[in-house]
Amino acid sequence: MVLKDYNFNELRTQLIAETKKKISESVHDDTIISQAINTISELDRVCNILAKRLREWYGLYNPELSHDIFDHIEFTKQILELNNNNSEMGGVFNSKDLEQIKELAEKLKGLYDEKDSIVDYIRIKMGSFCPHILEVCGPLIGAKLLAHKGHLRDLAFMPSSTIQILGAEKALFRHLKFNAKSPKYGYLLQHQDVAKAKNKGKAARQLANKISLAAKLDYFKKESVDEDKE
Amino acid sequence: MVLKDYNFNELRTQLIAETKKKISESVHDDTIISQAINTISELDRVCNILAKRLREWYGLYNPELSHDIFDHIEFTKQILELNNNNSEMGGVFNSKDLEQIKELAEKLKGLYDEKDSIVDYIRIKMGSFCPHILEVCGPLIGAKLLAHKGHLRDLAFMPSSTIQILGAEKALFRHLKFNAKSPKYGYLLQHQDVAKAKNKGKAARQLANKISLAAKLDYFKKESVDEDKE
Repeated sequence: MVLKDYNFNELRTQLIAETKKKISESVHDDTIISQAINTISELDRVCNILAKRLREWYGLYNPELSHDIFDHIEFTKQILELNNNNSEMGGVFNSKDLEQIKELAEKLKGLYDEKDSIVDYIRIKMGSFCPHILEVCGPLIGAKLLAHKGHLRDLAFMPSSTIQILGAEKALFRHLKFNAKSPKYGYLLQHQDVAKAKNKGKAARQLANKISLAAKLDYFKKESVDEDKE
Repeated sequence: MVLKDYNFNELRTQLIAETKKKISESVHDDTIISQAINTISELDRVCNILAKRLREWYGLYNPELSHDIFDHIEFTKQILELNNNNSEMGGVFNSKDLEQIKELAEKLKGLYDEKDSIVDYIRIKMGSFCPHILEVCGPLIGAKLLAHKGHLRDLAFMPSSTIQILGAEKALFRHLKFNAKSPKYGYLLQHQDVAKAKNKGKAARQLANKISLAAKLDYFKKESVDEDKE
């Protein structure tokens, strides 16, 4: 390339345009799904923080309720739906005090709903983008595997033994560095086939095999080779 | 007390009732205010987590916006209000993709509103419970000081030099243990009189003096001794 033939301003403009195009093209469905699943992880964290605070705050008014209901979502609903009878042990609250707590519970419930809504969204997105992965391991685990590297391509080219232990990096490096036992599963433990299995390592290996196949199928856009998936 | 005169079952019932009453009586306005201000701290944390995620997610669609708008609240509003023109650098989003992000922005805005609502609530509560503290240092700093020990009584009996460095415990213990410089202010730095002062230590000391007086006034329920507060 003979540089002096170039109008450098034009070159600069062209290069910027080219870069912008590249950035724009780097966004795919897997990038979006990764963002969505990461949002869910953060919503989990956030909901826990707020639910604990809600329990403590409402506990001033009715200490027994928090003790009776273990589940955060159920607890939030109860606060919103209950007639809010004061407990014998509770302090004196006026209606404004209660209203303020209910407002917080309302917002918290909104966050729980948002989580559900994003799960549905991920399911729809995966249904068109990587239906086989979705079918084998469901939206949550599937999206987490995708988000691990951020691209379907990476998952498709990954050996199934790697897929098996994605999400167990800490245990893996403990294994490599300090001769601890090698991990047998990471995200996959959340799958009910693995969680319920007697031999979890074996179940995780089998599931990882299936996911590896599914990822390759989805990436190379071959369709309906269902019998191979078994 | 002659124990054998007692019916022990009755004694037990009475003691439980007494304990419940004590628990119930331990709730005062300062306990409630403490819960409310702690909720605000947690909402701050939570909003930051979600706002950062929102920026990253929306950044796939329009990377420039996050760069242009530094303020989280303003950014959230823009997402909700904007026509959402795609940016040259952004990826291709369909309307469902955008809708999902907007839903998250909506929820985040709700949390910001909730924060404001709780601040108003604290202001009203403090207005009747400790009007002098409220007047001297405003709802946020006042409530933080109250929440530090959880009771107005503790604040009223605290020397003003302690009030001055509440919220700077880390620096204080660094001072005591390792001969570091002693802290000059904790929560009080957030007060504009201190933040804007040239000699912040002096301003904090003066403010702490006023707060100490105000706390004593509020605790011992003397009213309208306004001239003393100067």
